[in-house]
Amino acid sequence: MKKFINDPEMVVKEELEGVALAHPDLVKVNFDPDFVYRADAPVKGKVGLLSGGGSGHEPMHGGFVGYGMLDAACPGAVFSSPTPDQMLEATKMIDGGAGVLHIVKNYTGDIMNFEMAADLAKAEGINVEAVVIDDDVAVQDSLYTAGRRGVGSTVLAEKVCGAAAELGRSLSEVVDVCIKVKGWGRSMGMALTSCTVPHVGTPTFDLPEDEMEIGVGIHGEPGRKRMELKPADEIVEMLMEPIISDLPYKAGDNVLLFVNGMGGTPPIELYIAYRKAHQICEQHGLNVVRNFIGPYITSLDMAGVSITLLKMDEDLLTLWDHPVLTPGLRWGK
Amino acid sequence: MKKFINDPEMVVKEELEGVALAHPDLVKVNFDPDFVYRADAPVKGKVGLLSGGGSGHEPMHGGFVGYGMLDAACPGAVFSSPTPDQMLEATKMIDGGAGVLHIVKNYTGDIMNFEMAADLAKAEGINVEAVVIDDDVAVQDSLYTAGRRGVGSTVLAEKVCGAAAELGRSLSEVVDVCIKVKGWGRSMGMALTSCTVPHVGTPTFDLPEDEMEIGVGIHGEPGRKRMELKPADEIVEMLMEPIISDLPYKAGDNVLLFVNGMGGTPPIELYIAYRKAHQICEQHGLNVVRNFIGPYITSLDMAGVSITLLKMDEDLLTLWDHPVLTPGLRWGK
Repeated sequence: MKKFINDPEMVVKEELEGVALAHPDLVKVNFDPDFVYRADAPVKGKVGLLSGGGSGHEPMHGGFVGYGMLDAACPGAVFSSPTPDQMLEATKMIDGGAGVLHIVKNYTGDIMNFEMAADLAKAEGINVEAVVIDDDVAVQDSLYTAGRRGVGSTVLAEKVCGAAAELGRSLSEVVDVCIKVKGWGRSMGMALTSCTVPHVGTPTFDLPEDEMEIGVGIHGEPGRKRMELKPADEIVEMLMEPIISDLPYKAGDNVLLFVNGMGGTPPIELYIAYRKAHQICEQHGLNVVRNFIGPYITSLDMAGVSITLLKMDEDLLTLWDHPVLTPGLRWGK
Repeated sequence: MKKFINDPEMVVKEELEGVALAHPDLVKVNFDPDFVYRADAPVKGKVGLLSGGGSGHEPMHGGFVGYGMLDAACPGAVFSSPTPDQMLEATKMIDGGAGVLHIVKNYTGDIMNFEMAADLAKAEGINVEAVVIDDDVAVQDSLYTAGRRGVGSTVLAEKVCGAAAELGRSLSEVVDVCIKVKGWGRSMGMALTSCTVPHVGTPTFDLPEDEMEIGVGIHGEPGRKRMELKPADEIVEMLMEPIISDLPYKAGDNVLLFVNGMGGTPPIELYIAYRKAHQICEQHGLNVVRNFIGPYITSLDMAGVSITLLKMDEDLLTLWDHPVLTPGLRWGK
């Protein structure tokens, strides 16, 4: 295992210490239980937004804590769900009196723990709602998931719901925005290489030098098929076809096109992917009104890309363009 | 070779097509000769900023074209200098009447070609100045360089000179800012893995599974020493010591700490690197007043990090904080 780390068991703790040192103006880090939260939390009268999940997908979620996005994020161990006590303490920390929305990716452990935390928080008088994102069209049911996995749309949901909360919308209105993203976002990913969990020390799966995995999950869960390496344009077609043929896109729709790097893929390759994905959108009459290109939901050192399409309406455009100021995403402020 | 590409010979062209499709509001792409330039170029009365170099280091330089940073960037083939005709046409395109600054990394081919382009542009009546960045403390002279190589400080120079130009400063004043960065910035990098140039198809250098290269260049040029893989904190010490012991830092100085990913290194590892680098600054009495963490000057798929320290004064702080709006860097606008 060749990684830029110290002790494999200390990866998350040391990363959080790095975040705390780097961004004290934006976020604070609570240890035991671990969570990252807005430096100015709780924001009185604003709906609080909480997400979380296994570590190894940075900048999601901790890198998206700050003005216009999340109020807190709970990191689990690498590729492991955070615990209910993390989520409960974070929920209490960010409750500004207007309730808290949990944005949850569809993994069985995450859902179970977020549900338990929500119950505990409600027992303490906090109004909590949860939306589960399940946007990965690759497979139905997976290693850690019943139904579809939650992937790239989660980042987009965090952005637009964060803006909605910042604009003073109520908990039910922010929930509506999140449900819209859940309904209108679709994703699919692929891997050129596996990834290695630090405390495991060996690759999560084997992928021969001349093969790739289409439809891979962000923890290396099996995808749709393993096949020999193809040219980038063919790979993009294999990702875009299932996304576009799924609900809810039709010619004339406005979309946000998100080309994501899995962690080990350099920018030059992401733009080659974007080129073809954009062309395919045009061929289908989809207007790419916004795009988002970079490593935003990663899988450690995995080389690969995922593509997310989100249908956009006027409200989502307004929310997407709203200023954001977080360690991992920043504009307009 | 496992890459997300089509034809190895078409990597740069297709990447540029992706950039053109993705960011028409910010930049335009000229083909034959290839360069990326601001959509609103030339900006009348503003000093024009041009950089360029071999491709494979994205987002540097093309990703830094836009408001508050570069006016144009010339990409060569992967790890190969761009040609004088690219630089000349780009210089002419961005000249708004106040002259053009060429920000050049210290590689022999880049310098030779930028000098030729400057001579040709001057012959056409354009006022051109050039500053050569040579901030890599790892080695004196290298595979493609006499003196020190130009690396991370280049990105910082592009940011602050871009702001200075935007604020209406004259060519000689923008040159002064660039010379300040050249004097006050120091960098050093390391590699966990080699990188593979697409049209070559095999790794640039061999690095056994249990070894790393300290002081590596951004094209895989040899560094100071090859040794067995060490814990992250020890590696950061090996990078920071030569940086800090070089001119011009002393206790009490304000610095910008830039922790850069080489392309194949995930964010979680960059924050582990940042943690230790920040601690070392504190131990030396250096105040980290700004930081910058991410893959901004990459080496294709190389796994590794580089660290850049830039001494900051009030003017550099103002220029760093100035809004920027480019494909690869955006804030405050």
